[in-house]
Amino acid sequence: MTTNAAGPGREFRERELHLNLFIYPGGHHEAAWRHSSSDPDRLLDIRFYQDLARSAEAVTFDGVFFADGPALADNVRYASRFRLEPFTWLSAIAAATERTGLIGTASTTYSEPYNLARLFASLDHLSGGRAGWNIVTTGAPQAAQNFGLDAHPVHAERYERARDFLEAVTKLWDSWEDEALVADQRSGLFADTDRIHTVDHEGPLLKVRGPLNIPRSPQGRPVYVQAGSSEDGRAFAARYAEAIFTAHQTLRSGQDFYADIKKRAARLGRDPGQLLVLPGISPFIASTEAEARRLHEDFNELTQPEYSLELLHRLLGIRLTPQQLDGPVPRELIETQGERGNGSRFQLVLDIVEREQPTVRQLLHRLAGARGHRVFAGTPEQVADQIQQWYEQGAADGFNVMPPWLPGGFDLFADHVVPILRERGLFRSAYTGRTLREHYGLARPASRYAPQGAAVSVA
Amino acid sequence: MTTNAAGPGREFRERELHLNLFIYPGGHHEAAWRHSSSDPDRLLDIRFYQDLARSAEAVTFDGVFFADGPALADNVRYASRFRLEPFTWLSAIAAATERTGLIGTASTTYSEPYNLARLFASLDHLSGGRAGWNIVTTGAPQAAQNFGLDAHPVHAERYERARDFLEAVTKLWDSWEDEALVADQRSGLFADTDRIHTVDHEGPLLKVRGPLNIPRSPQGRPVYVQAGSSEDGRAFAARYAEAIFTAHQTLRSGQDFYADIKKRAARLGRDPGQLLVLPGISPFIASTEAEARRLHEDFNELTQPEYSLELLHRLLGIRLTPQQLDGPVPRELIETQGERGNGSRFQLVLDIVEREQPTVRQLLHRLAGARGHRVFAGTPEQVADQIQQWYEQGAADGFNVMPPWLPGGFDLFADHVVPILRERGLFRSAYTGRTLREHYGLARPASRYAPQGAAVSVA
Repeated sequence: MTTNAAGPGREFRERELHLNLFIYPGGHHEAAWRHSSSDPDRLLDIRFYQDLARSAEAVTFDGVFFADGPALADNVRYASRFRLEPFTWLSAIAAATERTGLIGTASTTYSEPYNLARLFASLDHLSGGRAGWNIVTTGAPQAAQNFGLDAHPVHAERYERARDFLEAVTKLWDSWEDEALVADQRSGLFADTDRIHTVDHEGPLLKVRGPLNIPRSPQGRPVYVQAGSSEDGRAFAARYAEAIFTAHQTLRSGQDFYADIKKRAARLGRDPGQLLVLPGISPFIASTEAEARRLHEDFNELTQPEYSLELLHRLLGIRLTPQQLDGPVPRELIETQGERGNGSRFQLVLDIVEREQPTVRQLLHRLAGARGHRVFAGTPEQVADQIQQWYEQGAADGFNVMPPWLPGGFDLFADHVVPILRERGLFRSAYTGRTLREHYGLARPASRYAPQGAAVSVA
Repeated sequence: MTTNAAGPGREFRERELHLNLFIYPGGHHEAAWRHSSSDPDRLLDIRFYQDLARSAEAVTFDGVFFADGPALADNVRYASRFRLEPFTWLSAIAAATERTGLIGTASTTYSEPYNLARLFASLDHLSGGRAGWNIVTTGAPQAAQNFGLDAHPVHAERYERARDFLEAVTKLWDSWEDEALVADQRSGLFADTDRIHTVDHEGPLLKVRGPLNIPRSPQGRPVYVQAGSSEDGRAFAARYAEAIFTAHQTLRSGQDFYADIKKRAARLGRDPGQLLVLPGISPFIASTEAEARRLHEDFNELTQPEYSLELLHRLLGIRLTPQQLDGPVPRELIETQGERGNGSRFQLVLDIVEREQPTVRQLLHRLAGARGHRVFAGTPEQVADQIQQWYEQGAADGFNVMPPWLPGGFDLFADHVVPILRERGLFRSAYTGRTLREHYGLARPASRYAPQGAAVSVA
């Protein structure tokens, strides 16, 4: 286990804090694009994102992270909710950076294993081993109609396909052993075909013959990242994930999740240190706490109820009107049964309602920051304290930093919080590795087909 | 029509020669990787490809071109026949270049319209309007088993899906009108949802609801490139293609194809000038013709019969042994009926056999250069003469240049042939546009949903 807290000094630490920059067009606060410090003209400009990744790399962040989903959000009228395609976007970012990891979201429900395996293998090659895959089953039901389906598969079905899919693509990434590419000009042997394997995957839902048509990549395969915290999601993460992106509002909730997921991994025979827990945090940073809170208020005042009420409907299944904003959240209308009740984000919002008894407007403002992820307003020291506390008290191995607006919200973190974390010996001052696996302290998996029997199966 | 030959002088020319660099790992000659001037260690190094694209851009090439297929070739034992994934690779190349077009191959048989539409829209955005799509239906039957199918769909079925697919993705690319993205910070209107349209495509095989989740890209949609020259392929190209990549061994064959495809396009009501014909040419260049021929021989001597006989089997369906190399090609064994006989490449190779009566070895050497595309060995002047002749005598609007080896084979073309083409007033000395459409002289399509009624339908 690696959950023991280390001292605050600068001594050699085996355990290390991990930080990703989660990039959302414009920033994570739903009204970020409206703020005077934002430049909406740059939202489709790749250089904007390359600059952000370079900023993350300049402060030795483990990686940058892109969300995705194969459907248009319902409320694009009010917020920058289009979806830049992660593989293309991250490949162009790879070309502008050297070290920082590149984590892209891709759906097991709405892609083909062979195509996805090729995209990640190529991204891993061209980035020198910096690819990470945020594995999702896609929550947005409207995606189904973009793929010729009448209905979105239910939660359990999506996870069944996800497991099958993971097995298939992992075999594809293993299908070329490391030594398969020979390229001996003299003998004329380009590839040792004895070291290239059909995978003949036949799962409950997917059949894939293989082999992949790309040699094994620097990391063997992308780092497996996972973001679902439902019961199905936890079981999946404990088996497959190497990093978990998770949402928690309180230290206690983070600690419970952390302990649970590490225990589940151990029970499956995995080293829990090879599964990093990275909650989201969306920090409003200013030189005084009062100023930080005012900044947060400024953003909240730019929100539009039409948008926020739609988000609430998606999260809780209740349709409210602008006239209800200053009344209490009608707890009795929330539908806890059925498909929505399975989701971890549903439970998180329900917990806020029960714990804090907010008005509708207060709840909407709570959610406006980062769609249920933790928003924290404070001084750089206070933000660093929060990070240190969660890290040292068994709630996190690091964080997905979700700046409320970009690039300014990240610049404040980079310029003022990172130096404190370094001063406290919590965060690296220079990269020691080149690949995302190395940044995260994760082992490089061997191909299951490698002759030494050293293969590490994910199953 | 734009098929009239222009004079050789430097006067203003409305018609302009177009040149793409077709990049194949290591080069197009099957033994390129074995030649002493190749560096096989760079075959997976993105900087190698970025450097090639920069070289193409330095001599104002219209674009670079990547082949693709979702299966491993049978004969990777002897040749560099892995497949770098084009979207990732081209995105990283986009980041290293400013002007040259980026044409990637993608299959309508083995991808989902919604995913493909997003990949190209993003590539077009991040490259500032330089994306081109080489539309293929996938010829390699072994792809089917990588996608859970028992058998590869037959030629006609693949083309039926291709038409359906084109209609679906074109609608998706049209689904955001140009003015849909508003991003007005003051009013809070991010997107004018009246200008974002569901597409509700219901074709014979595909159903796609839309809209796309990415705003309309600089070119509206990628340039449609097509490479099949069978009867189905020609019908498809005449309807949809804006550039055609085609293989011809003789001027006469090129002329016949050129006249046929332009006539078909005109018959469908299209402007034939908006459909460029770009044959492949693989040039061995040296200061004397004899030296160029020797260079070609050097490469042919590095070929391996095990590889070439396998290629011949794929092309003609006949299995021969190394013992038969110096005998005649057994014409009677070639199976002209059935699925293979539909392919244009099959017919091209059959024509060589009938016209030239080669030995097996001679035929293999003919095919080793560029898998059926035209190989030409000569001085820079002779190469330029060939290009000019085909261009002026109604066989080509330009060429896909397929260097036998890389980067050297392209450097010779750039350094010695391009200056002659410019001197003769055939080829640009500077880019006048920024997008691939502008380089090619193609109109930017309006969205079919645009209110002016100016929409250009592809159908």
